[in-house]
Amino acid sequence: MSENSKTLRFGILGCANIARKVARAIALAPNATLCAIASRSREKAEKFAAENGFPASVRVYGSYDQVLEDPCVDAVYLPLPTSLHVRWAVMAASKKKHVLVEKPVALDVAELDRILDAVESNGVQFMDGSMWLHHPRTAHIQRLFSVPHSANSVGPVRFIHSTSTMPATPEFLESDIRVKPELDGLGALGDLAWYCIGASLWAKGYQLPTSVTALPDSTRNDSGVIVSITASLLWDQPNQTFATIHCSFLSHTSMDLAICGSNGSLHLRDFIIPYGETSASFDLTLGAKFVDLHIGWNVRPEEVHVANELPQEALMVQEFSRLVAGIRDCGSKPSTKWPEISRKTQLVVDAVIKSLELGCKPVCL
Amino acid sequence: MSENSKTLRFGILGCANIARKVARAIALAPNATLCAIASRSREKAEKFAAENGFPASVRVYGSYDQVLEDPCVDAVYLPLPTSLHVRWAVMAASKKKHVLVEKPVALDVAELDRILDAVESNGVQFMDGSMWLHHPRTAHIQRLFSVPHSANSVGPVRFIHSTSTMPATPEFLESDIRVKPELDGLGALGDLAWYCIGASLWAKGYQLPTSVTALPDSTRNDSGVIVSITASLLWDQPNQTFATIHCSFLSHTSMDLAICGSNGSLHLRDFIIPYGETSASFDLTLGAKFVDLHIGWNVRPEEVHVANELPQEALMVQEFSRLVAGIRDCGSKPSTKWPEISRKTQLVVDAVIKSLELGCKPVCL
Repeated sequence: MSENSKTLRFGILGCANIARKVARAIALAPNATLCAIASRSREKAEKFAAENGFPASVRVYGSYDQVLEDPCVDAVYLPLPTSLHVRWAVMAASKKKHVLVEKPVALDVAELDRILDAVESNGVQFMDGSMWLHHPRTAHIQRLFSVPHSANSVGPVRFIHSTSTMPATPEFLESDIRVKPELDGLGALGDLAWYCIGASLWAKGYQLPTSVTALPDSTRNDSGVIVSITASLLWDQPNQTFATIHCSFLSHTSMDLAICGSNGSLHLRDFIIPYGETSASFDLTLGAKFVDLHIGWNVRPEEVHVANELPQEALMVQEFSRLVAGIRDCGSKPSTKWPEISRKTQLVVDAVIKSLELGCKPVCL
Repeated sequence: MSENSKTLRFGILGCANIARKVARAIALAPNATLCAIASRSREKAEKFAAENGFPASVRVYGSYDQVLEDPCVDAVYLPLPTSLHVRWAVMAASKKKHVLVEKPVALDVAELDRILDAVESNGVQFMDGSMWLHHPRTAHIQRLFSVPHSANSVGPVRFIHSTSTMPATPEFLESDIRVKPELDGLGALGDLAWYCIGASLWAKGYQLPTSVTALPDSTRNDSGVIVSITASLLWDQPNQTFATIHCSFLSHTSMDLAICGSNGSLHLRDFIIPYGETSASFDLTLGAKFVDLHIGWNVRPEEVHVANELPQEALMVQEFSRLVAGIRDCGSKPSTKWPEISRKTQLVVDAVIKSLELGCKPVCL
């Protein structure tokens, strides 16, 4: 262990763009430190380390295996293409490294289960890279669901709508990793819908939907990878809830989340990446009615601001590191919360794929 | 004609709640005046006239026929239950009365065509009561679509999402006119989805969708009337566009409209009834990108305010009266714009019903 046993020492496997953001988050988190970076070539890793101003203490490796063999590395972050996750996550776990895996975690739940089996049998912590779940805004909103029948609660959730869209260039649609069948075969369903499915499940307290249906607008690139997808999730019990998600590389940037309950509604326009780093807001409308003659409303949305001391990705790293410290220093078991969230998200991803294969028929879960 | 030949003299057939709003709109519109009100009983009509402070000049009738026989009445407004529209709209047209019909216009397009045939053969103006189309905000937003490839345009529309929801009481769900099979058999699909379908068509310049699909969450009351419905509209050409609509009597009040193009997006939270009477706003986001490291956005939504001198329902009455003045004073033909909008909306309503009957299969238009 390092001098400070509270500090989790990270190795990063791969030099993807997202690794820059997470390397910064590791530097910002008070209980984590970056100690190794690897690429498939040492040259590329050195360039990445220099460009991102990593301190000289960060070891630079020309292969992923070297990070896993490094006894100073406590945990690895995997920003690799999805098709490589199962191999490297399983191997990392077998080397007793805790694993923070970029989303989507796997190409299907069978692959994900191989990862989860490996982390469980090796007693290491697992978490996927869904950063927005760690923003204090998320916890703040969650409290608005927790008291189902109060005037300050949105009440039982009836409808959820979310989007994750970005306008890709023609080059992206042809050749970016996220739409290459051999690298990220899930395309927009993995890269974008992971968030919308995750938000829908979160709004329902991680109850799995009764059925999942792909809608008839999915679009694929020339290689057959999904570049645009809409899907719906239906919960039958205890109250019927319906969610629509729309994810696309063909639209202007959007990250909308609207949740409508029986007594109120919530709207976010930046739920995945907040507009700014130090606070985020959402609009809350409670008990809205029309005034007499229906010529206006009795209330307008209230903009609620939630400050955050650290960016959400640093909070994610901090939470992951806190869990590992609990395992290491207090003999805690790895938290099952995060693997369960990932697994439920992946189950819905799989159901969307199956519904597409069935010509957009509902798939029961 | 009245002294002022520019003033359109309205008769109202029925004393529904919505008639109070439209009577006020007729009073506010500079080119219209209320001259008659009828109910099925004279007593009820008198009570309605007194409660709403109608001037003594307004004739009060105990039957709808009397309004249609009154030579002083130029036009009628029909706030009756939908199942009665065809009978009274056709009869009004045959008496050469111009007709402003509350939405939904009819139970199906066959009924609507009977109305449109009658107004056409009698040379009278037709319009449905979709008030939001007459707000200057609507025209303002429309200009943002009109230049498809400019930095100030949202670009070709890719995705549209709209809602119209309100929390009905158990009594409403059992016995309100809007969920009675013999009165408003379309339920939420007629009362609420008319707006969302209309907004989707409007955003696509009234191009009919290629296909319409009901989603698997529709809910009916004990009488079999739809109280909650979600549906999707797909346009194949020239650019693929997808729209989802969600309409329900089982949720908190919402009137969301989000339109996402290739270069920008628009968000309204009050598209059907603006929060206030003198201005309305929308949020516009153009050219949004993430900043370096994806730790925030380069732009935030701009709140655009649009002032209106008259409430949207008065602007609707004013526009209707202007069209009639053109027919009467300048020999213009009745405008076909408004009947066409109503007919396209009704065609999509019919397609949703058909899709429901087919077990949520897509219905081509």
